[in-house]
Amino acid sequence: MSEKVENLIRKEVQEINAYHVPNPGDMIKLDAMENPYSMPQSLMDEWLGLVRQAEINRYPDPSAARLSATLESYMEVPDHFSSVKNKVILGNGSDELIQIMAMAVAKPGSKIMAPEPGFVMYNMIATFVGMDYIGVALKDDFSLDMPAMLVAIETHQPALIFLAYPNNPTGNLFSDDDILKIIDMAEGLVVVDEAYHPFACESFMSRVGEFDNLLVMRTVSKMGLAGLRLGMLAGPEKWIDQFDKIRLPYNINILTQVTAEFAIKHADIFEKQAKIIRQQREWLHKELCAFNQFEVFPSRANFILLKVLKGDATYIFEGLKQRGVLIKNSHSAGGVLTQCLRVTVGKQEENLALVDALKACVE
Amino acid sequence: MSEKVENLIRKEVQEINAYHVPNPGDMIKLDAMENPYSMPQSLMDEWLGLVRQAEINRYPDPSAARLSATLESYMEVPDHFSSVKNKVILGNGSDELIQIMAMAVAKPGSKIMAPEPGFVMYNMIATFVGMDYIGVALKDDFSLDMPAMLVAIETHQPALIFLAYPNNPTGNLFSDDDILKIIDMAEGLVVVDEAYHPFACESFMSRVGEFDNLLVMRTVSKMGLAGLRLGMLAGPEKWIDQFDKIRLPYNINILTQVTAEFAIKHADIFEKQAKIIRQQREWLHKELCAFNQFEVFPSRANFILLKVLKGDATYIFEGLKQRGVLIKNSHSAGGVLTQCLRVTVGKQEENLALVDALKACVE
Repeated sequence: MSEKVENLIRKEVQEINAYHVPNPGDMIKLDAMENPYSMPQSLMDEWLGLVRQAEINRYPDPSAARLSATLESYMEVPDHFSSVKNKVILGNGSDELIQIMAMAVAKPGSKIMAPEPGFVMYNMIATFVGMDYIGVALKDDFSLDMPAMLVAIETHQPALIFLAYPNNPTGNLFSDDDILKIIDMAEGLVVVDEAYHPFACESFMSRVGEFDNLLVMRTVSKMGLAGLRLGMLAGPEKWIDQFDKIRLPYNINILTQVTAEFAIKHADIFEKQAKIIRQQREWLHKELCAFNQFEVFPSRANFILLKVLKGDATYIFEGLKQRGVLIKNSHSAGGVLTQCLRVTVGKQEENLALVDALKACVE
Repeated sequence: MSEKVENLIRKEVQEINAYHVPNPGDMIKLDAMENPYSMPQSLMDEWLGLVRQAEINRYPDPSAARLSATLESYMEVPDHFSSVKNKVILGNGSDELIQIMAMAVAKPGSKIMAPEPGFVMYNMIATFVGMDYIGVALKDDFSLDMPAMLVAIETHQPALIFLAYPNNPTGNLFSDDDILKIIDMAEGLVVVDEAYHPFACESFMSRVGEFDNLLVMRTVSKMGLAGLRLGMLAGPEKWIDQFDKIRLPYNINILTQVTAEFAIKHADIFEKQAKIIRQQREWLHKELCAFNQFEVFPSRANFILLKVLKGDATYIFEGLKQRGVLIKNSHSAGGVLTQCLRVTVGKQEENLALVDALKACVE
């Protein structure tokens, strides 16, 4: 590396390994928790009619006011909780919202905390903005290790705590009581990340405003619009107003505004897709449990984590790839994820193909 | 403000006033340097055919590789400069790229420098990421005050220097010699921001790689795609690779990737529009010069800055608004912008309406 790079770029950035995303080629894509269903053809024409009218030569509405209101209503953000007024802010995926929150609280020495294993971006974004990251190991059953969490909160006084609900990559919902205890104990902000809400059907959204330090995050990625990169953060106005100051103006482009607005109007279609995926999850879970080589963990999301008890996770991952099925090999993360694989729930025929390929791999 | 907000949110963020964008309603919009022309109807169907095929249920290409290559070629980024390999990185508008660069170099005490008046986001983003911002006043003719610049570089050793080329809101191109002297003097990175390139027809792009610390930034906003929010940064690979590590993966959404790719394939149309705008700029400049109330500054961009010599800028701004024409009142920025107004060059009929409304205002 050149001397100039060494001198100018922050040391933590120099040490980052760039985020690697494998190229899926023509494989069956069960690696990224995408909704496998596209927008029905019957809706396409109406949608494209709106896209046609979008003024792409003009800057978009800088605060995406109409889309914000639509999402606020659809995601059932309580307008008030007693005297506390709530608000939302939109980002290019949850990632941008995590980064905005982190930048807002990134005083020297301030910290981000989350259970581990968890969503990798909590840790990465802490590094991006120069904050320390504290990961607290989950228990072996993937529940929160409450004594360890409370000690870590006490010791590190994190400015931000992220709790994915359900958790990625483990798929479980943490106990509501545990989450409430953390909200109560924490001096900092607690962000309940409900990215997988369409498959969990449990939420803290109705309690936004009840606690001084609770924020709830959602995304349209898993409901079937991953290509749009649109996330929403809900919370008491006093927090959202601060975050909104460091949101880059015009961050949500015109095509995203038009498309998400349209999709939410037809949310029933995406909800039906989510229902099918939940049914397929149950089917796939049962099928995977039939393999005596695997320990299969329960899931409230659109993916299933499994541990290879007999054999080798990487061997199976590669074997599936050779058979045209791309999943996620979580083995390299180590810890409780040693010998673990994560599979996204796809369409029935994709799930069948996965099961067949798995059978061929373990034979 | 609640005690918790005061304790957790960085003081500099608490003190920010949120970026205000006026609602244009049905006014003639000459405030935001947009290209007034939309995509020709003849191209719409082909474009919408591509949008129809976009898999919006899937995550986009995380690094937008194809679009990057297309832009790299169209923007004539030199692949190499002698032995130095160049690369590009894309952002949601130049704003995200400025933020990425700032985050990468935001060591305690590191600084961002730019001439003033300049693009407001350089200063705002410095605050967002916790860096100090050093503004160096331009001379009265809006050229760089080289002695002051060189002293400021010597004193502050800025990690990042932004030079908008042409400058916004003054519209002029800084002298190439001055810019080269700054590149030579600076230990930090020098970013030549060529947002208005379609109207300037001058560029440092061909010199990317020649200097260890030169980066060139472009956007598709002014060429006619402001709604997409897409910017590009070109520079030596060793810098771009570092920035790419803190780019949020999947930052460019699928609809932007598809649309920008398509637009660049038909760049001749946008180039013709730019040519008309340059002609209209000359026409409008002459018309404005005919007012003896104004000092009109020369422009290499798609806007014209003028100073109200007799009368009051805010009175004229409000008078135009009442007559249905929205421009930018730069008076409140103070300094050399006192009594200044900035008008975007629009379509012929819009420019005519502006001139007529101005006549009515100063009568």
